[in-house]
Amino acid sequence: MKKIRVGVAGYGTIGQRLADGVAMQGDMELVGIADLAPTLSIRALAENDMIGANGVKYDLYLVEGAEKSQFDELGIPVAGTFEELIKSVDIMLDSAPGGVGAKNKVLYEKYGVKAIFQGGEKNSVADVFFHGYANYEKGVGAQYLKLTSCNTTGLIRAVDALDREIGIEKVAITIIRRVADPGDYHRGLTNALQMEKAPSHQAVDLMTIMPHVEATGILVHTPVTHGHIITVLATAKDGKKITKEKALEIFKKHPRIRVVSIAEGFKGNASLFKYARDLGNRRGDMYEIGLWEDSIVESGNDIMFAINIPQESVTIPETIDGIRAAMCMQKTREEGTAETNKYLNIGKFKK
Amino acid sequence: MKKIRVGVAGYGTIGQRLADGVAMQGDMELVGIADLAPTLSIRALAENDMIGANGVKYDLYLVEGAEKSQFDELGIPVAGTFEELIKSVDIMLDSAPGGVGAKNKVLYEKYGVKAIFQGGEKNSVADVFFHGYANYEKGVGAQYLKLTSCNTTGLIRAVDALDREIGIEKVAITIIRRVADPGDYHRGLTNALQMEKAPSHQAVDLMTIMPHVEATGILVHTPVTHGHIITVLATAKDGKKITKEKALEIFKKHPRIRVVSIAEGFKGNASLFKYARDLGNRRGDMYEIGLWEDSIVESGNDIMFAINIPQESVTIPETIDGIRAAMCMQKTREEGTAETNKYLNIGKFKK
Amino acid sequence: MKKIRVGVAGYGTIGQRLADGVAMQGDMELVGIADLAPTLSIRALAENDMIGANGVKYDLYLVEGAEKSQFDELGIPVAGTFEELIKSVDIMLDSAPGGVGAKNKVLYEKYGVKAIFQGGEKNSVADVFFHGYANYEKGVGAQYLKLTSCNTTGLIRAVDALDREIGIEKVAITIIRRVADPGDYHRGLTNALQMEKAPSHQAVDLMTIMPHVEATGILVHTPVTHGHIITVLATAKDGKKITKEKALEIFKKHPRIRVVSIAEGFKGNASLFKYARDLGNRRGDMYEIGLWEDSIVESGNDIMFAINIPQESVTIPETIDGIRAAMCMQKTREEGTAETNKYLNIGKFKK
Amino acid sequence: MKKIRVGVAGYGTIGQRLADGVAMQGDMELVGIADLAPTLSIRALAENDMIGANGVKYDLYLVEGAEKSQFDELGIPVAGTFEELIKSVDIMLDSAPGGVGAKNKVLYEKYGVKAIFQGGEKNSVADVFFHGYANYEKGVGAQYLKLTSCNTTGLIRAVDALDREIGIEKVAITIIRRVADPGDYHRGLTNALQMEKAPSHQAVDLMTIMPHVEATGILVHTPVTHGHIITVLATAKDGKKITKEKALEIFKKHPRIRVVSIAEGFKGNASLFKYARDLGNRRGDMYEIGLWEDSIVESGNDIMFAINIPQESVTIPETIDGIRAAMCMQKTREEGTAETNKYLNIGKFKK
Repeated sequence: MKKIRVGVAGYGTIGQRLADGVAMQGDMELVGIADLAPTLSIRALAENDMIGANGVKYDLYLVEGAEKSQFDELGIPVAGTFEELIKSVDIMLDSAPGGVGAKNKVLYEKYGVKAIFQGGEKNSVADVFFHGYANYEKGVGAQYLKLTSCNTTGLIRAVDALDREIGIEKVAITIIRRVADPGDYHRGLTNALQMEKAPSHQAVDLMTIMPHVEATGILVHTPVTHGHIITVLATAKDGKKITKEKALEIFKKHPRIRVVSIAEGFKGNASLFKYARDLGNRRGDMYEIGLWEDSIVESGNDIMFAINIPQESVTIPETIDGIRAAMCMQKTREEGTAETNKYLNIGKFKK
Repeated sequence: MKKIRVGVAGYGTIGQRLADGVAMQGDMELVGIADLAPTLSIRALAENDMIGANGVKYDLYLVEGAEKSQFDELGIPVAGTFEELIKSVDIMLDSAPGGVGAKNKVLYEKYGVKAIFQGGEKNSVADVFFHGYANYEKGVGAQYLKLTSCNTTGLIRAVDALDREIGIEKVAITIIRRVADPGDYHRGLTNALQMEKAPSHQAVDLMTIMPHVEATGILVHTPVTHGHIITVLATAKDGKKITKEKALEIFKKHPRIRVVSIAEGFKGNASLFKYARDLGNRRGDMYEIGLWEDSIVESGNDIMFAINIPQESVTIPETIDGIRAAMCMQKTREEGTAETNKYLNIGKFKK
Repeated sequence: MKKIRVGVAGYGTIGQRLADGVAMQGDMELVGIADLAPTLSIRALAENDMIGANGVKYDLYLVEGAEKSQFDELGIPVAGTFEELIKSVDIMLDSAPGGVGAKNKVLYEKYGVKAIFQGGEKNSVADVFFHGYANYEKGVGAQYLKLTSCNTTGLIRAVDALDREIGIEKVAITIIRRVADPGDYHRGLTNALQMEKAPSHQAVDLMTIMPHVEATGILVHTPVTHGHIITVLATAKDGKKITKEKALEIFKKHPRIRVVSIAEGFKGNASLFKYARDLGNRRGDMYEIGLWEDSIVESGNDIMFAINIPQESVTIPETIDGIRAAMCMQKTREEGTAETNKYLNIGKFKK
Repeated sequence: MKKIRVGVAGYGTIGQRLADGVAMQGDMELVGIADLAPTLSIRALAENDMIGANGVKYDLYLVEGAEKSQFDELGIPVAGTFEELIKSVDIMLDSAPGGVGAKNKVLYEKYGVKAIFQGGEKNSVADVFFHGYANYEKGVGAQYLKLTSCNTTGLIRAVDALDREIGIEKVAITIIRRVADPGDYHRGLTNALQMEKAPSHQAVDLMTIMPHVEATGILVHTPVTHGHIITVLATAKDGKKITKEKALEIFKKHPRIRVVSIAEGFKGNASLFKYARDLGNRRGDMYEIGLWEDSIVESGNDIMFAINIPQESVTIPETIDGIRAAMCMQKTREEGTAETNKYLNIGKFKK
C-alpha cells in the first residue's frame, strides 16, 4: 500500500514532535520539514546528520525569507524550498507560529494539498475543529482541520470518555497552567500566579467540539515548565449520579489516559515528566494524559478529578488521527485512533 | 473600660501578626509574647527595642526549655516565664507549632484562662471550631476556640457571604496553594506542582463550620510564596440561579473582601502582595482576601470565581473576633467583627 | 534653616522609595511626585489619602501625556503639572523609566534645577557618575548626578570600604541576579538560569567610579525576586594579603553593611527580606547590604566573600547622599553620609 | 575478547544512567542492577519489559531488606539477590544512597570484586579519589575508586585542561547550584537563594585531586532543576597571562567540553537541557559540560569563565573511565577516555 506523504511546517516544540510522530507511522512517509532559520532545534538535528525518530532522515526545506547561506555556513543540508515540499506531499501539518499558518494556507490551496493546523491559528482557518476521539468522523475527508490546543486536547479526552458512557451536561474546570516550556527564555513568571480573564478559552473550545456540553472555567498561570494540571467538575445529564468507581473504570479503559496515584509515587506533574524520561521516551515525552486516581471525589451527583497535560506532546496523537481522518485512511474513530496508538506505542502499558 | 489582657504564645509567622493585631485594638492590651529561642523574628523585635505595632512594647516571656542565657548574650530583655504570662492574661492566643498548643492547654486550664488555637491543632483541642463571620455566636463565652486555617478562613468569608443572602447548598473548590512563606528554607518546591489526596481538608473544615453545605475539593501545591488562589464553584439551594451581578454585589459589600480586577492591574497574587507593601501596611500584609471581578463566571445556575488568600495575615481578624466572642466583648457577629475591622482599618477602602 | 525642596519624577519601584527617603529627612521637604498614569502604586497612595512615609502628604503632579480625567474618576487628587513641580523645587530625583530621564532633563535645564538620575539612564546624562561613599566630593555642587545601579551601589560599598583601608587593585565578581521584583509580571524566568555576555556592566561601572581598580565579572539571572547575591574576589595592591579577620573588621564598621551569618539563621536572600519585614520596615525594605561572615574565605592573598543586594531600596541612601552633595548641604562624605544615615535610621543596629 | 562484567547497585538518578552507560560499551557487559523497592524508575524499566539502553536487558537483583512480593505483585521479574549479582561481576558501580556504599563494601570485599563509589560516600571508602582526565593513571589496577561529585567532575575537566597546557596555580569558584533534579519532591527551594558555608566542598575536592592547585569557592543554591552553573577564576603559575584566545582553543579541543554561546541561542542551563532533548539523547541527558564562549573574560593575567554542569549525567563518562582504569582495560588516560568517548558518542559534534 502506498504510504501517505506528509510534510511539517515549523520545526519548533510542536513541529519536532509531529515529525517524530509521523516518522513512527508505518503507513506514512515524512517527506520533509520546513523552517526559516538554523534554530537550536535544527542544529540538534544536523548534529545527528538529520536523522530523527525511528532512524528516519528529515529533509529540510526553507520557507520564504530564509537565508540559505546561514545553513550552508553551518554545514546544514537543505533539500529545497517550502513550495517544493508542499508539491511533494499529500498533507501538511502546519505548526508554524500562530498566524503564519493562515498565510501558509494560500500555498496549500495553490497546490491542492490538505493541511492540519495547530491550536495557535484561528478556527476559521479550517473546515473542522478536530479532536481524534470526540469528532473523528467530522474530519473524514476534510480538506483543512484545526487541532484543539494542548489543554483542550487532554481535557476532551477525559470528558469525551465520560460523555460516551454516561452523558455529560456540564463541566467547570480550573486550569493550573505551566507558564513556559523547558528551555523557554522568551516568557516566564517568577514567584507569581497569574490570572486570566474568565472563562478560559479551553472551556469555550470544548463547547465548540462538544456542543451539547455547557463548559466554563478559570485559568491560572504557575511558574513551572512540566505539564498543566486541570481539575474538572463534571455533571451528568438528567441528574444522574457519577460514582468514583464508574469514572475510574472508564478512565482506566482509555488508551490515552494513564491512571496514576500519589500513593505509587506520582506526586505531581514533575513525577510524570521524570517517569517519561525514565521510560526512555524520545525527548522525555509522554503522549498520555495523567489522571490521579486519588484525586477523584464525588460532589453530590457530580464527579471531580485532576488530570496532567504534557503540553509539548499531548496533541501529537490527535494530529496523527487527523491525518488518518482527512486522508480517509480509516473511516471511524475506533479504527483511526487504534492505528495511531499502535504506531506510537500508546496503551501498551495497560494490562 | 478595662482592657482585655491578651498573651501570644509562639512568635512565628502567625504569632507576630497576632501580637500586632492585638496591639492595634483600642480595647485590648498585649501583655506579652512567649517563645523558646532567639529566632530572627525575636531578634528583629529586639533590634527595635521590643517596640512592635502601634508603638506598643512587646514583653517577652520564655517557655519551658528556653535557655535564658542565649537571650542575655544577645542583650534581649526577658520579662518572665510562660506561666507568669498566662497568669497575667484573660486569654491566650496560641500560635505555637502544631501540636504544642494541645500541650500548652494544660497550663491554660491550670490557670483558668481562655485560649484560641490556630489551624495547626486538632479540632478536639477546642470547644468551638470558629470563624468570625460564619459562627461568631457559637464562640460567645466559650473557653477554647480553634480558628480555621488560612485557606479555610478566606474561603468561608466568601461562601458565608453568598450563603447568608442566597443560601448555598454545595461548593467544589480547587486550591492553588503557595507552598512556602517568604523566607522559608525548611520547605519548598522547585519547578513542580504537587497533588494532595482529595478531598482537601479545607473542604472538610468548611463543612464542620457550615454543616448545611456539601463541600469537596482538590489541592495542588505551587512553587510560589505570595498568596494562595482558590477557585470556588458554588451551587445555591433549590436550584436557584446565582447571577454574576448578584454575586459581585454581595462580595463588594463585605468588609474583608477586596474586589479587584485584572483590568486594574491586579494580575495575580503577587500584585496583591506588592499593593499591600505599597500601602505601607506593616510587614506588607493584607487582611482582606482578594476577589477577581473578571474571574466570576456563571456555570448554569452555579457561580464560579477566584479568590486570593494572603496566608500570613488572613486569619488575624477572625482571631481577634474570637477574642471578642470568647470574652463576651460583643455578643453578635455584626458588633464583634465591626469592632475588629475598625481597629485594623479594614474596609476603609470601600466607598 | 530652610529645607531643601525635592521632587520625584516617576513613582515606580524606585520612585516610591526615593519619596519615602526624602520624607524622612529632617532637612528636606518633599514637594511632590510626578507620574503619568493611575498605577497601582498611585492608587495605593490614594487609598491612604496621599499620606506616605513619616506622615508626609505626597502631592501628585502629572507629566505630559497624562489624562487628568483618569485620576478624577478614581478620586485621586492632582496638585498640578510636572513643570509646576519642577519650578517649585531645588532638585529633582528622576526615577522615570530608562531613557525618559534624558528627555526630562530638558525641563530641568529650562528651569535651572539640579537633578539626580537613576542607573537606567546613560552616563552622559549627568556630569558625575555618583556613589555616596566612593566619590561624594566629586558630586559636591554638581548640577547633574547619575546614581550607580542597585548591584553596583551595593558592590562599591564593600569594595570601597576595603580599598580605603587596604588598597584594592583588582576585583572579579559573579552576580547571581534576581530576575524580577515582587509583583513584576512583565518579566520573569521559570526554572532557568540565564547568562549575560561578560563582562557585566556592573564591573565596568565600578571601574568608572573607582578607576584605579581593574574589575571584571559574570552575571547570571536566577528566578527569584528578593535580593541579588554577588560573590567578590578582591586583590590588594602590591601583593598585600587580605586576611579574613581584617576584612570582617572593616565590613563590621560600615554603617550600610549588615554583617550576618548562616549560623544565626540568615540562610539566604529571602531571610534578609523576611527580617526586614519583621523589623516593620516600610514596604519590608532594607537599606543595608547583607554580608555573610561565613562566606568570607581567603584565596592566597586575595579575599572572597558574598553580599546581598536588596535591589528595590539599596540605592536610596546613596541618592539622598547625592542631594546633600549636589546642594552643598555637607561638603564631605563623612558628614553627608552621616546625615543621611541618621534620618534613615541606618546603622542603628551596630553596637 | 572477554567483556568486563559490571553490576550497578542502586537504580536511582545516577544508577540508571550508569547502567545505560555500561550498556553502551562494546567491551563491557551489564550483568544486572540491584535495588530495594519497586520505585517509579524500576516500574518504568518494567513497563519496557526490562529493556534499557542499546536494547540491553537489565536483570534486577534485590538487596537485603527488599520484599520480593512487592515486585511479584507488580509483575516485575527478579533475577536474584544482591550477593548473587556481586558474585557474577568483575566490578560493581555503587550508586546506593550516601553511606550505604560503605556498608555494601563489606560484600564487595567478601567476594573480592572491585567497586567504584559515587560522590555521596566518604573519601575513605576508596583507595583512590578518581577523575578520568585528571588522575586516570592513579586508578589503574586499583581495587576501590571513588568518583568526584557532579560539580567537581565538570569543574576539573575545565581546570585540568588549562592546567595541562598552561599550568594552573589557583582557582576561585562560584557555584550557582541547581537545588533539585527534575521530579524531586523531597527537596526544593521556592523564590530563594541559599548560602552554604564557604569554602564549598567542591573546591576542597579539587585540591585533593589536583594538590598543586589552591582552590576556594562559594556555593549558592538556586531554585532550578536543570544544570549547575559555575564561574571559575583561574590563575596560572609564575604570573603567566592566560589569554581568552588560548583558553578558548584549549576548551574547544576537549571532547567532554561543549563550547557554546549566547549568540547561538544557548541562553542558559535550560537551553542546554532542551538541546539535549532535541538531540534525542536518552532521558534528555548530556555528557559534556557546556562552556560559554561569551563568558570568557580576562582579569589581569587571570581568566574567568562560566560552565554548565548537567548534574544527572556528567559523572557517567568519568565513572566508565574508572572501570577501564581499575580493570586495567587501558593503561593511560588518553586510551581510556578515548574508548569511553567512542562508545558514548562523545565528541562526535567536534569538527
